Amino acid sequence: MKVSTELLRQGFGFTDGILPAKCATRTVLDHVTSKWGVLVLVALTEQTLRWGELRRVVQGISEKMLAQTLKTLEADGFVHREAFGSIPPRVDYSLTDRGRDLTEKLMPLMDWIAGNAEEIINPLTASPA
Amino acid sequence: MKVSTELLRQGFGFTDGILPAKCATRTVLDHVTSKWGVLVLVALTEQTLRWGELRRVVQGISEKMLAQTLKTLEADGFVHREAFGSIPPRVDYSLTDRGRDLTEKLMPLMDWIAGNAEEIINPLTASPA
Repeated sequence: MKVSTELLRQGFGFTDGILPAKCATRTVLDHVTSKWGVLVLVALTEQTLRWGELRRVVQGISEKMLAQTLKTLEADGFVHREAFGSIPPRVDYSLTDRGRDLTEKLMPLMDWIAGNAEEIINPLTASPA
Repeated sequence: MKVSTELLRQGFGFTDGILPAKCATRTVLDHVTSKWGVLVLVALTEQTLRWGELRRVVQGISEKMLAQTLKTLEADGFVHREAFGSIPPRVDYSLTDRGRDLTEKLMPLMDWIAGNAEEIINPLTASPA
Protein backbone atom coordinates (compact mmCIF):
# COMPACT_ATOMS: atom_id res chain seq x y z
CA MET A 1 0.00 0.00 0.00
CA LYS A 2 1.36 3.40 -0.95
CA VAL A 3 0.82 6.49 1.10
CA SER A 4 -0.73 9.33 -0.77
CA THR A 5 1.06 11.96 -2.77
CA GLU A 6 0.02 14.46 -0.15
CA LEU A 7 1.79 12.62 2.65
CA LEU A 8 4.84 12.29 0.46
CA ARG A 9 4.74 15.98 -0.34
CA GLN A 10 4.69 16.76 3.36
CA GLY A 11 7.92 14.93 3.86
CA PHE A 12 7.24 11.24 4.21
CA GLY A 13 10.67 9.74 3.70
CA PHE A 14 14.07 9.74 5.22
CA THR A 15 15.02 13.32 4.61
CA ASP A 16 12.28 15.17 6.39
CA GLY A 17 10.73 12.46 8.51
CA ILE A 18 7.13 11.38 8.73
CA LEU A 19 5.11 14.53 8.79
CA PRO A 20 7.47 17.26 9.96
CA ALA A 21 6.95 17.96 13.64
CA LYS A 22 5.38 21.37 13.14
CA CYS A 23 3.17 20.71 10.12
CA ALA A 24 -0.58 21.33 10.09
CA THR A 25 -1.28 17.63 9.59
CA ARG A 26 0.15 16.78 12.99
CA THR A 27 -1.93 19.48 14.63
CA VAL A 28 -5.19 18.25 13.11
CA LEU A 29 -4.19 14.66 13.79
CA ASP A 30 -3.72 15.55 17.45
CA HIS A 31 -7.16 17.15 17.59
CA VAL A 32 -8.95 14.30 15.86
CA THR A 33 -7.22 11.49 17.71
CA SER A 34 -7.13 13.18 21.10
CA LYS A 35 -8.38 10.95 23.88
CA TRP A 36 -11.85 12.51 23.71
CA GLY A 37 -11.96 14.04 20.23
CA VAL A 38 -12.49 10.74 18.50
CA LEU A 39 -15.27 9.68 20.89
CA VAL A 40 -17.12 12.98 20.51
CA LEU A 41 -16.87 12.68 16.72
CA VAL A 42 -18.23 9.12 16.83
CA ALA A 43 -21.06 10.23 19.12
CA LEU A 44 -22.12 12.92 16.66
CA THR A 45 -21.96 10.57 13.67
CA GLU A 46 -25.41 9.25 14.42
CA GLN A 47 -27.27 12.40 15.41
CA THR A 48 -27.27 15.93 16.76
CA LEU A 49 -26.76 15.91 20.51
CA ARG A 50 -27.20 18.41 23.32
CA TRP A 51 -24.50 19.13 25.86
CA GLY A 52 -26.00 16.88 28.53
CA GLU A 53 -26.46 14.03 26.05
CA LEU A 54 -22.82 14.25 25.02
CA ARG A 55 -21.76 14.17 28.65
CA ARG A 56 -23.78 10.99 29.11
CA VAL A 57 -22.81 9.06 25.99
CA VAL A 58 -19.11 9.90 26.06
CA GLN A 59 -18.57 8.01 29.28
CA GLY A 60 -15.95 9.36 31.62
CA ILE A 61 -15.50 12.78 30.03
CA SER A 62 -15.42 15.71 32.47
CA GLU A 63 -17.30 18.98 31.93
CA LYS A 64 -13.98 20.71 31.38
CA MET A 65 -12.68 18.20 28.85
CA LEU A 66 -15.97 18.15 26.95
CA ALA A 67 -15.92 21.95 26.71
CA GLN A 68 -12.30 21.95 25.54
CA THR A 69 -12.82 19.12 23.04
CA LEU A 70 -15.91 20.75 21.52
CA LYS A 71 -14.13 24.10 21.29
CA THR A 72 -11.23 22.54 19.37
CA LEU A 73 -13.50 20.56 17.05
CA GLU A 74 -15.62 23.67 16.43
CA ALA A 75 -12.54 25.80 15.70
CA ASP A 76 -11.38 23.19 13.18
CA GLY A 77 -14.78 23.34 11.49
CA PHE A 78 -15.78 19.75 12.29
CA VAL A 79 -18.59 20.54 14.71
CA HIS A 80 -21.41 23.08 14.52
CA ARG A 81 -22.70 24.62 17.73
CA GLU A 82 -26.20 26.06 17.80
CA ALA A 83 -27.52 27.88 20.86
CA PHE A 84 -31.26 28.42 21.26
CA GLY A 85 -32.47 31.37 23.28
CA SER A 86 -34.79 29.15 25.28
CA ILE A 87 -35.25 28.82 29.02
CA PRO A 88 -33.58 26.67 30.16
CA PRO A 89 -30.86 27.32 27.57
CA ARG A 90 -30.38 24.62 24.98
CA VAL A 91 -27.27 24.06 22.88
CA ASP A 92 -27.09 21.51 20.08
CA TYR A 93 -23.94 20.05 18.58
CA SER A 94 -23.79 18.43 15.17
CA LEU A 95 -21.25 17.52 12.51
CA THR A 96 -20.54 20.00 9.73
CA ASP A 97 -20.01 18.82 6.15
CA ARG A 98 -16.28 18.77 6.89
CA GLY A 99 -16.98 16.77 10.02
CA ARG A 100 -18.94 14.24 7.97
CA ASP A 101 -16.11 13.97 5.45
CA LEU A 102 -13.77 13.23 8.33
CA THR A 103 -15.97 10.68 10.08
CA GLU A 104 -16.51 8.80 6.82
CA LYS A 105 -12.77 8.08 6.96
CA LEU A 106 -12.73 7.59 10.71
CA MET A 107 -15.57 5.08 11.05
CA PRO A 108 -13.99 2.21 9.09
CA LEU A 109 -11.00 2.46 11.44
CA MET A 110 -13.28 2.57 14.49
CA ASP A 111 -15.25 -0.41 13.21
CA TRP A 112 -12.09 -2.41 12.65
CA ILE A 113 -10.82 -1.60 16.12
CA ALA A 114 -14.18 -2.44 17.70
CA GLY A 115 -14.28 -5.75 15.86
CA ASN A 116 -10.76 -6.78 16.82
CA ALA A 117 -10.10 -5.16 20.18
CA GLU A 118 -11.26 -8.03 22.37
CA GLU A 119 -8.96 -10.52 20.65
CA ILE A 120 -6.07 -8.06 20.75
CA ILE A 121 -6.38 -7.30 24.45
CA ASN A 122 -7.56 -10.71 25.69
CA PRO A 123 -6.31 -13.21 23.11
CA LEU A 124 -6.87 -16.23 25.33
CA THR A 125 -10.47 -15.52 26.31
CA ALA A 126 -11.82 -13.88 23.16
CA SER A 127 -14.13 -16.07 21.11
CA PRO A 128 -13.03 -16.63 17.51
CA ALA A 129 -14.47 -14.08 15.10
CA MET B 1 -23.77 6.70 7.81
CA LYS B 2 -24.46 3.95 10.30
CA VAL B 3 -21.95 2.74 12.78
CA SER B 4 -21.32 -0.94 12.63
CA THR B 5 -23.18 -3.61 14.50
CA GLU B 6 -20.06 -4.18 16.53
CA LEU B 7 -19.99 -0.63 17.84
CA LEU B 8 -23.69 -0.86 18.63
CA ARG B 9 -23.14 -4.13 20.45
CA GLN B 10 -20.49 -2.49 22.58
CA GLY B 11 -22.96 0.08 23.77
CA PHE B 12 -23.23 2.85 21.23
CA GLY B 13 -26.40 4.61 22.27
CA PHE B 14 -27.88 6.45 25.17
CA THR B 15 -28.00 3.64 27.68
CA ASP B 16 -24.40 2.59 27.89
CA GLY B 17 -22.61 5.47 26.24
CA ILE B 18 -20.19 5.43 23.35
CA LEU B 19 -17.86 2.57 23.98
CA PRO B 20 -18.06 1.87 27.71
CA ALA B 21 -15.11 3.44 29.49
CA LYS B 22 -13.40 0.16 30.32
CA CYS B 23 -13.96 -1.79 27.10
CA ALA B 24 -11.16 -3.27 25.04
CA THR B 25 -11.98 -1.00 22.12
CA ARG B 26 -11.02 2.09 24.07
CA THR B 27 -7.74 0.50 25.11
CA VAL B 28 -6.76 -0.38 21.55
CA LEU B 29 -7.99 2.99 20.34
CA ASP B 30 -5.70 4.67 22.86
CA HIS B 31 -2.74 2.63 21.66
CA VAL B 32 -3.37 3.24 17.97
CA THR B 33 -4.16 6.92 18.24
CA SER B 34 -1.57 7.75 20.87
CA LYS B 35 0.54 10.75 19.97
CA TRP B 36 3.30 8.55 18.60
CA GLY B 37 1.55 5.27 17.86
CA VAL B 38 -0.10 6.53 14.73
CA LEU B 39 3.15 8.02 13.37
CA VAL B 40 5.12 4.82 14.01
CA LEU B 41 2.40 2.81 12.24
CA VAL B 42 2.47 5.18 9.26
CA ALA B 43 6.27 4.97 9.15
CA LEU B 44 6.16 1.17 8.97
CA THR B 45 3.48 1.15 6.27
CA GLU B 46 6.05 1.66 3.58
CA GLN B 47 8.85 -0.58 4.74
CA THR B 48 10.69 -2.40 7.48
CA LEU B 49 12.76 0.02 9.52
CA ARG B 50 15.56 -0.24 12.04
CA TRP B 51 15.51 1.49 15.40
CA GLY B 52 17.67 4.40 14.28
CA GLU B 53 15.64 4.88 11.12
CA LEU B 54 12.42 5.06 13.14
CA ARG B 55 14.03 7.61 15.43
CA ARG B 56 14.90 9.72 12.41
CA VAL B 57 11.65 9.55 10.43
CA VAL B 58 9.29 9.97 13.38
CA GLN B 59 10.50 13.48 14.07
CA GLY B 60 10.52 14.60 17.66
CA ILE B 61 10.10 11.20 19.30
CA SER B 62 12.42 10.52 22.23
CA GLU B 63 14.28 7.25 22.77
CA LYS B 64 12.04 6.51 25.71
CA MET B 65 8.78 7.20 23.87
CA LEU B 66 9.88 5.19 20.85
CA ALA B 67 10.72 2.22 23.07
CA GLN B 68 7.39 2.50 24.89
CA THR B 69 5.36 2.93 21.68
CA LEU B 70 7.01 -0.04 19.98
CA LYS B 71 6.51 -2.19 23.06
CA THR B 72 2.78 -1.42 23.11
CA LEU B 73 2.35 -1.97 19.37
CA GLU B 74 4.30 -5.22 19.61
CA ALA B 75 2.20 -6.44 22.56
CA ASP B 76 -0.97 -5.70 20.57
CA GLY B 77 0.40 -7.74 17.70
CA PHE B 78 0.67 -4.88 15.21
CA VAL B 79 4.44 -4.75 14.99
CA HIS B 80 7.00 -7.52 14.62
CA ARG B 81 10.43 -7.09 16.18
CA GLU B 82 13.35 -9.05 14.82
CA ALA B 83 16.74 -8.91 16.46
CA PHE B 84 19.81 -10.07 14.57
CA GLY B 85 22.79 -11.40 16.48
CA SER B 86 25.14 -9.20 14.54
CA ILE B 87 27.80 -6.81 15.74
CA PRO B 88 26.79 -4.06 16.06
CA PRO B 89 23.33 -5.36 17.03
CA ARG B 90 20.58 -4.76 14.52
CA VAL B 91 16.86 -4.76 15.24
CA ASP B 92 14.23 -4.51 12.52
CA TYR B 93 10.62 -3.49 12.99
CA SER B 94 7.85 -4.30 10.54
CA LEU B 95 4.09 -4.55 10.43
CA THR B 96 2.44 -7.91 11.11
CA ASP B 97 -0.58 -9.06 9.11
CA ARG B 98 -2.76 -7.55 11.82
CA GLY B 99 -0.78 -4.33 11.60
CA ARG B 100 -1.40 -4.24 7.85
CA ASP B 101 -5.12 -4.79 8.37
CA LEU B 102 -5.11 -1.86 10.76
CA THR B 103 -3.10 0.52 8.58
CA GLU B 104 -5.36 -0.21 5.62
CA LYS B 105 -8.11 1.43 7.66
CA LEU B 106 -5.83 4.09 9.10
CA MET B 107 -4.27 5.40 5.88
CA PRO B 108 -7.46 6.80 4.28
CA LEU B 109 -7.97 8.83 7.45
CA MET B 110 -4.35 9.98 7.42
CA ASP B 111 -4.58 10.89 3.75
CA TRP B 112 -7.73 12.91 4.33
CA ILE B 113 -6.15 14.76 7.24
CA ALA B 114 -2.97 15.43 5.28
CA GLY B 115 -4.98 16.75 2.36
CA ASN B 116 -7.14 19.07 4.45
CA ALA B 117 -5.00 20.08 7.41
CA GLU B 118 -3.53 23.23 5.92
CA GLU B 119 -6.95 24.67 5.10
CA ILE B 120 -8.28 23.68 8.52
CA ILE B 121 -5.44 25.28 10.46
CA ASN B 122 -4.71 28.24 8.19
CA PRO B 123 -7.95 28.90 6.31
CA LEU B 124 -6.90 32.35 5.11
CA THR B 125 -3.54 31.43 3.65
CA ALA B 126 -4.19 27.94 2.32
CA SER B 127 -4.49 27.71 -1.43
CA PRO B 128 -7.74 26.24 -2.70
CA ALA B 129 -7.62 22.48 -3.21
